[in-house]
Amino acid sequence: MHNINLENVELLITDSLQAVGLKEEEAKICAKNIAFADQQGTDTHGIMRLPIYIERLKNGLFNSKPNTQWVRENETSAVLDGDNGMGHYSAQLAMEKAIKKAEEKGIGITTLYNGNHIGAGACYTKMAAEKGMIGFLTTNAGPLMAPTGGTERLLGNNPICYAVPRREKDPIVLDIANSIVAGGKLQLASSKSEEIPLGWALDKEGKPTTDPDRGLEGVLLPIGGHKGYGLTLMMDILAGVLSGASYSKNIPHLDEEGKTGVGCTMIAFKIENFMELEHFYDRLDDFTSLIVDSKKAPGFERILLPGEIESETKDKRLQEGTQISDSLRQELVTMLDDLQLQTDKYGL
Amino acid sequence: MHNINLENVELLITDSLQAVGLKEEEAKICAKNIAFADQQGTDTHGIMRLPIYIERLKNGLFNSKPNTQWVRENETSAVLDGDNGMGHYSAQLAMEKAIKKAEEKGIGITTLYNGNHIGAGACYTKMAAEKGMIGFLTTNAGPLMAPTGGTERLLGNNPICYAVPRREKDPIVLDIANSIVAGGKLQLASSKSEEIPLGWALDKEGKPTTDPDRGLEGVLLPIGGHKGYGLTLMMDILAGVLSGASYSKNIPHLDEEGKTGVGCTMIAFKIENFMELEHFYDRLDDFTSLIVDSKKAPGFERILLPGEIESETKDKRLQEGTQISDSLRQELVTMLDDLQLQTDKYGL
Ligand SMILES: NC(=O)c1ccc[n+]([C@@H]2O[C@H](COP(=O)([O-])OP(=O)(O)OC[C@H]3O[C@@H](n4cnc5c(N)ncnc54)[C@H](O)[C@@H]3O)[C@@H](O)[C@H]2O)c1
Ligand SMILES: NC(=O)c1ccc[n+]([C@@H]2O[C@H](COP(=O)([O-])OP(=O)(O)OC[C@H]3O[C@@H](n4cnc5c(N)ncnc54)[C@H](O)[C@@H]3O)[C@@H](O)[C@H]2O)c1
Repeated sequence: MHNINLENVELLITDSLQAVGLKEEEAKICAKNIAFADQQGTDTHGIMRLPIYIERLKNGLFNSKPNTQWVRENETSAVLDGDNGMGHYSAQLAMEKAIKKAEEKGIGITTLYNGNHIGAGACYTKMAAEKGMIGFLTTNAGPLMAPTGGTERLLGNNPICYAVPRREKDPIVLDIANSIVAGGKLQLASSKSEEIPLGWALDKEGKPTTDPDRGLEGVLLPIGGHKGYGLTLMMDILAGVLSGASYSKNIPHLDEEGKTGVGCTMIAFKIENFMELEHFYDRLDDFTSLIVDSKKAPGFERILLPGEIESETKDKRLQEGTQISDSLRQELVTMLDDLQLQTDKYGL
Repeated sequence: MHNINLENVELLITDSLQAVGLKEEEAKICAKNIAFADQQGTDTHGIMRLPIYIERLKNGLFNSKPNTQWVRENETSAVLDGDNGMGHYSAQLAMEKAIKKAEEKGIGITTLYNGNHIGAGACYTKMAAEKGMIGFLTTNAGPLMAPTGGTERLLGNNPICYAVPRREKDPIVLDIANSIVAGGKLQLASSKSEEIPLGWALDKEGKPTTDPDRGLEGVLLPIGGHKGYGLTLMMDILAGVLSGASYSKNIPHLDEEGKTGVGCTMIAFKIENFMELEHFYDRLDDFTSLIVDSKKAPGFERILLPGEIESETKDKRLQEGTQISDSLRQELVTMLDDLQLQTDKYGL
């Protein structure tokens, strides 16, 4: 393991993105939003993905000079064409616009198409919470799940994300994909030659399996059966069908050929249109106390609110930096060499 | 079992509600929205609940002459005080207002407090779909679930509901509570002296149980562990904290003393602000074909879209009527006698 501080993470990402042709301003926004994931401990969505982003930018699967533009706009809504540029940039614009609409009209809803992977959804909904708004976001992704009763990969692990501001504390942020576990847990079990519990995945034939490798060839199972299927389907309708983006099995994964063409839907609305913000904060503090101060189940010392783990990790990592594995470090060193950037500049 | 046609169901409900003091117009709206559940097969939320509603209206736990009024209004939002009247009436007003705002401004968001049980959420989101809009609704309810790591009943089975219009077909409607199974399934297992699977419920001490009676004393488990906990918590923030309604354990169940004080949040937005409606319908047809025409898993003959079961039940029951159990029939007969209404008028 190798320790690297978060400023260096951000700088490394900025320089790398600029090295493959992104404008400085866009590279900086992307770097902030990618490093956001490392900061809060969502390691699967942070700098770990940089090598694949850079590869796609280099070979034209992502557009490094996108003509990102608003193609439709109304009083409360707007549609953004991301022109296949970095998702971390277009998603930021889409949420900023939703917030601006909400400032003017109380609520704003924006969609994005021709987008790409946006990383951790929390990054964008938190922008709304910082303005005293409730933020919602969904995006769609390469298919990993089947509908209830099916066997084909047709639905992505499309996240649902909400952020709600609190007084003098980090917001409550729920940021979840709809599978019981992420594919990464199957990969981990496979690498350790361990079985997975029944209920995590189906094999290629649609039969329940405890073999992680058969699960990886098959489909992940959604939370709550038809309930999680329904939720991830609705998120594909919002992020894909409504936005004008690709959807379902038309979305390639990042390690496959072709543009992802994914989309997003974002909503932000002002709390003050419903009650004074201070009153809302009082009520929310009372509500959250009922939850976190309640009796603990055997084996639990604490009850958490959504977003608390990430908030604590962030405070810690801003002090102590983040750890990257030797193999990721090696990948980054190779990538930086290739981009003719100095490894030691980033404390790698 | 006793067959009764849906017009009679609605008439019976209207007359009963008027008999305990509701205005004709309000009684009719409530009857339509309660019978909606019977029509689409959500039998747990239809006429089965009428006796408890009537009892609460009679003893003043529900207000039969509410002064339902808008207490805050902005361009895109509004807050309704339901004055403890029937939830099926105030929820209808709240969704109508969200739709009206959406017609004017593209999107509308309304909240309701001092509400009551609204029945099946689908009833209201479908109103938005009928106008070429996407509808969202949540409401909160008496607590049945604990937060992850807790043992106390602190969170209701707060439904999440979305409706999306289709061309010449009933809308896609997802209308789900966040527990793995509803409490009714535990009651059923108990009545048959059967065990329940591990993972449905915890006992009073917070330990997993296969005994339905211990589960009924304890808490229901949410879908996907912390994911379902997070979703139901967010729904309580929207429907309870934000709206000014009661929340968490402050909400009594319908069979308990005290006013429920529940709330709702509803959103409606125009699809046309994102793309032509016909284009959206084309895309949605293509998307849904990918899903329903895909390969079936062993044991499945069909893949369903959310809302399809209910849509088919509705078509069937509009023709054939609905079946009510002998015990429900007896309860209704007693109730009608008590209200001095004629049983045979309703084909009971
Ligand atoms: N961009 C994409 O295409 C894409 C696709 C899928 C997932 N993602 C991202 O992946 C990340 C992880 O998703 P996931 O579903 O694997 O996350 P997860 O299972 O780790 O759940 C994370 C969420 O649950 C909360 N949480 C966890 N334990 C909790 C507890 N005990 N009590 C209360 N709350 C708790 C966290 O605070 C967080 O909000 C998210 O940031 C998501 O946006 C992105
Ligand atoms: N008013 C309240 O306080 C309150 C509280 C809880 C629940 N409810 C209502 O109870 C009702 C039932 O909730 P539930 O969670 O028990 O419902 P459920 O488990 O029966 O799921 C119903 C939803 O899932 C869909 N569905 C079911 N099987 C499917 C399949 N194989 N493929 C695709 N979609 C499928 C249905 O079309 C429907 O949208 C809802 O109407 C809800 O609004 C109301």
